[in-house]
Amino acid sequence: MDKIKLSDKFKMFDDHWSPRIVGELNGQYIKLAKFKGKMVWHSHDNEDEFFQVIKGNIVIHLRDRSINLSEGECFIVPKGVEHLPEAAEEAEVMMFEPKHTAHTGTKESELTVAVDKQAWI
Amino acid sequence: MDKIKLSDKFKMFDDHWSPRIVGELNGQYIKLAKFKGKMVWHSHDNEDEFFQVIKGNIVIHLRDRSINLSEGECFIVPKGVEHLPEAAEEAEVMMFEPKHTAHTGTKESELTVAVDKQAWI
Repeated sequence: MDKIKLSDKFKMFDDHWSPRIVGELNGQYIKLAKFKGKMVWHSHDNEDEFFQVIKGNIVIHLRDRSINLSEGECFIVPKGVEHLPEAAEEAEVMMFEPKHTAHTGTKESELTVAVDKQAWI
Repeated sequence: MDKIKLSDKFKMFDDHWSPRIVGELNGQYIKLAKFKGKMVWHSHDNEDEFFQVIKGNIVIHLRDRSINLSEGECFIVPKGVEHLPEAAEEAEVMMFEPKHTAHTGTKESELTVAVDKQAWI
């Protein structure tokens, strides 16, 4: 039951597309990740996913449009909606999602980090 | 399915301790509120509550200590834990909690805003 200082947490890791868990509430995890480059197209059958840009800029591509997000902007990807996160430069992102949410949803890729391999920091 | 720009949302209301709903996911609401002065001591029997300071400084008093939170800092109040949020100057806060979470938990007060009176913006 300590406070979570986001800037300190982001200093604790450098790799991209590898979420760290910083909090848990009501069956959901709060995760932090650094984005750079392109993720992979994927969707989550039963989980909505919240993204908040803490630093930098990202794009969440959907099949019919792309959402540009800057610091202080958020977006919820509803369950079942295919999405591809991208960041031209490194960006810091906070996510909320159910604890069991698979990293790349129904799509396995070389970027996939299994939920039980996503470390608490 | 639009992006949520926090600074724009906070311009849409001025009152204190009156949460607005800006998003919904997995049975949880994302809420924004302006804090100023003292709330009331309360707890939520079955809901954990996440606070993130978007602007300003707040204090979350617990019975045994007080947590000072500045911009970019977060805290999760676990279910059942009595807390009293306070802000000396106006602060902007994002919260994440189950949809049915009562505003002031088991404690009714003149500050209480029923969940069905908390407007979407």
